[in-house]
Amino acid sequence: MAQGTLLYAQSGGVTAVINATASAVIQTARARKVKVLAARNGILGALGEDLIDTSKESIAAIRALAHTPGGAFGSCRVKLKSLEADRARYERLLEVLRAHDVRYFLYNGGNDSADTALKVSRLAAEFDYDLTCIGVPKTVDNDLAVTDCCPGFGSAAKYTAVSVREAALDVAAMAETSTKVFVYEAMGRHAGWLAAAGGLAGNGRDEAPHLILFPERPYDEADFLAKVQATVKRVGYCVVVASEGIQTADGRFVADAGGGTDSFGHTQLGGVASFLAGRVKDALGLKVHWTLPDYLQRSARHLASKTDLDQAQAVGRKAVEYALKGMNAVMPVIVRTSDTPYRWRIEPAPLEKVANHEKKMPAGFIRRDGHGITPAARRYLEPLIRGEAPPPYGRDGLPKYVALKNVAVKRTLPRWRP
Amino acid sequence: MAQGTLLYAQSGGVTAVINATASAVIQTARARKVKVLAARNGILGALGEDLIDTSKESIAAIRALAHTPGGAFGSCRVKLKSLEADRARYERLLEVLRAHDVRYFLYNGGNDSADTALKVSRLAAEFDYDLTCIGVPKTVDNDLAVTDCCPGFGSAAKYTAVSVREAALDVAAMAETSTKVFVYEAMGRHAGWLAAAGGLAGNGRDEAPHLILFPERPYDEADFLAKVQATVKRVGYCVVVASEGIQTADGRFVADAGGGTDSFGHTQLGGVASFLAGRVKDALGLKVHWTLPDYLQRSARHLASKTDLDQAQAVGRKAVEYALKGMNAVMPVIVRTSDTPYRWRIEPAPLEKVANHEKKMPAGFIRRDGHGITPAARRYLEPLIRGEAPPPYGRDGLPKYVALKNVAVKRTLPRWRP
Repeated sequence: MAQGTLLYAQSGGVTAVINATASAVIQTARARKVKVLAARNGILGALGEDLIDTSKESIAAIRALAHTPGGAFGSCRVKLKSLEADRARYERLLEVLRAHDVRYFLYNGGNDSADTALKVSRLAAEFDYDLTCIGVPKTVDNDLAVTDCCPGFGSAAKYTAVSVREAALDVAAMAETSTKVFVYEAMGRHAGWLAAAGGLAGNGRDEAPHLILFPERPYDEADFLAKVQATVKRVGYCVVVASEGIQTADGRFVADAGGGTDSFGHTQLGGVASFLAGRVKDALGLKVHWTLPDYLQRSARHLASKTDLDQAQAVGRKAVEYALKGMNAVMPVIVRTSDTPYRWRIEPAPLEKVANHEKKMPAGFIRRDGHGITPAARRYLEPLIRGEAPPPYGRDGLPKYVALKNVAVKRTLPRWRP
Repeated sequence: MAQGTLLYAQSGGVTAVINATASAVIQTARARKVKVLAARNGILGALGEDLIDTSKESIAAIRALAHTPGGAFGSCRVKLKSLEADRARYERLLEVLRAHDVRYFLYNGGNDSADTALKVSRLAAEFDYDLTCIGVPKTVDNDLAVTDCCPGFGSAAKYTAVSVREAALDVAAMAETSTKVFVYEAMGRHAGWLAAAGGLAGNGRDEAPHLILFPERPYDEADFLAKVQATVKRVGYCVVVASEGIQTADGRFVADAGGGTDSFGHTQLGGVASFLAGRVKDALGLKVHWTLPDYLQRSARHLASKTDLDQAQAVGRKAVEYALKGMNAVMPVIVRTSDTPYRWRIEPAPLEKVANHEKKMPAGFIRRDGHGITPAARRYLEPLIRGEAPPPYGRDGLPKYVALKNVAVKRTLPRWRP
């Protein structure tokens, strides 16, 4: 224990493979005799000194994390502000780290988490506390800068492509006398990455999906309805993939079902598919069905991409290696070295290049007519959904997902009141 | 060909495994040197003399049907009325069968299809036309009489149980600062079979799903909201599985999103989950998400139950055997001979015992408080989702589903105008 303890925390929306990253972190650290604590419910547990002793978990349980979706230690949606605005919280965090001799802080999340890890590293330097901070990438939104792709995205992308292909076969079979239009709502507040992945379900203009609605392009109702009608006339049915984040030309979200905002300040969305379905029904008089997979798309570990799983584990391993080498304020990112064959490696990137930047989908990924993906998009996306990595199933027909004991470490500090 | 031709048709909503039945029908008939035609879009193709020559398909394609969802020849929602009311259509059907020397008519569907097959057999007898009619069971609704379960249901049930378990892990990880209530909407107009299958996702009152809303029990909003609130207080979050068909005590559907009726006279449903989510948000002020998997749940061949697949193939094989033995007006049904170990066999049942009867869920399957399943339900349901039967995947990360050529047989009759 001379080298100090490693604290691992999960942040933001969980994915099908974030626990695979945790599994790799813990296994790599164990092999190096480094003690690993995990913060319960992400940064909240770190602030509240609610820390989990992962050494109480069997190696079998830690291995089983690799095939278990969700966030095994809990995650949270709490964003720390600037060092100045949130100084009390940053200092408390440092106090907790110091109390448990934490020398390595691994924060597994998106843009905001990279920013937090960066700020913690700066504060530690200011206080002369020896701490190595690593951001570990994760998000189904695929919107992290620098890295070629984000662990979690590939599996959600595979779920999307497979689900669209399957539902399209159903619609095709029934279209003569039943549903003629089907709308699939994909996650993606600001970028159409998952909607684009739906495009992998088919090839050519007559294969589903026939229309993709991207948040990168303004929603034009007349154009949408005309294309739906033309597709039904030509093909017999029409499958639409719509991103939850589509907006009209004047910047209003097409459907804002929740209407609230979360603590990151994001608008709560939902209901785009049901809105579009209503328009198709009323304006075109066509029978329509829609689906809102919601959390199913980011928790479907049963349909994980092997590429995604491999990358989620690789960033976890590298994060520990970088930490133990004292490579402060970096993130292990995925670098693509070749499309065909698909090759990638992990490299360290400075957190300041990742934090608070948002990767947009390249304009060249959206077809000129605005409603499909280009060959360039396909070259980028296709390797990310490649390969299967099913979980083991029990005799009861269900995946054998693990539940950890999550034994808390004894608190040493006074309770903290923010 | 001395023994005549076999006509196979699919009817009603398709499933993840109805093509596996088709595959077994065609392979069994081919082995017996019987020519198989398939009606395009179900009974519509039979009426319109739009028949597909399955001998044009390779054996590889026919085998691949066993892992392809949807309806390979097209299905339809068209219900023939009584022999008296729809006499012209029944007689046209007989004319088409006669024109192609069809001596075996296999109709793959639910209650209504069993009824149609029965009526066709009666008409053939009346006209002294030698025809053997077989109903082949299929429906995700699991509401066919006599048979212990229906091919198609087990896979949809497995999809439901796995999806609820996965989403629940996501919600559990985020509940501290984000979504506290999650609502999953399951298909089931009149019976809560699929909602009940969601109950397999957990065990005990603190494991998800915490509440199941069955169409068999009146929806009581005050009770529902109180239980959601109590669960959130006790567990930290609450996962609800709601059947699309839930009704208030006075018989009104809780959410009637579509508002229309299909040609079977069923009310078009949808939107129960979004309605319940709205109530939770407004009345309890809790953050809520919901999912409406819609067609995904009945087309998810990637997550098919091995038991279901085996049974779908078995009824297909037996249907051909019964037909060739001249066992008229029967349906191969699944007879359960043991729960533990689970054993079943196929037996013939008279179509008149199946046609137009609806199997309700036994009252003893719903927990006394109305919001969960009993051990008896678990004993019945669990074997049906047992075993995995994933499709082969391509290098592109997508299942290799087959598209048939569906070459039409030359028409011999004048066009028919209904």
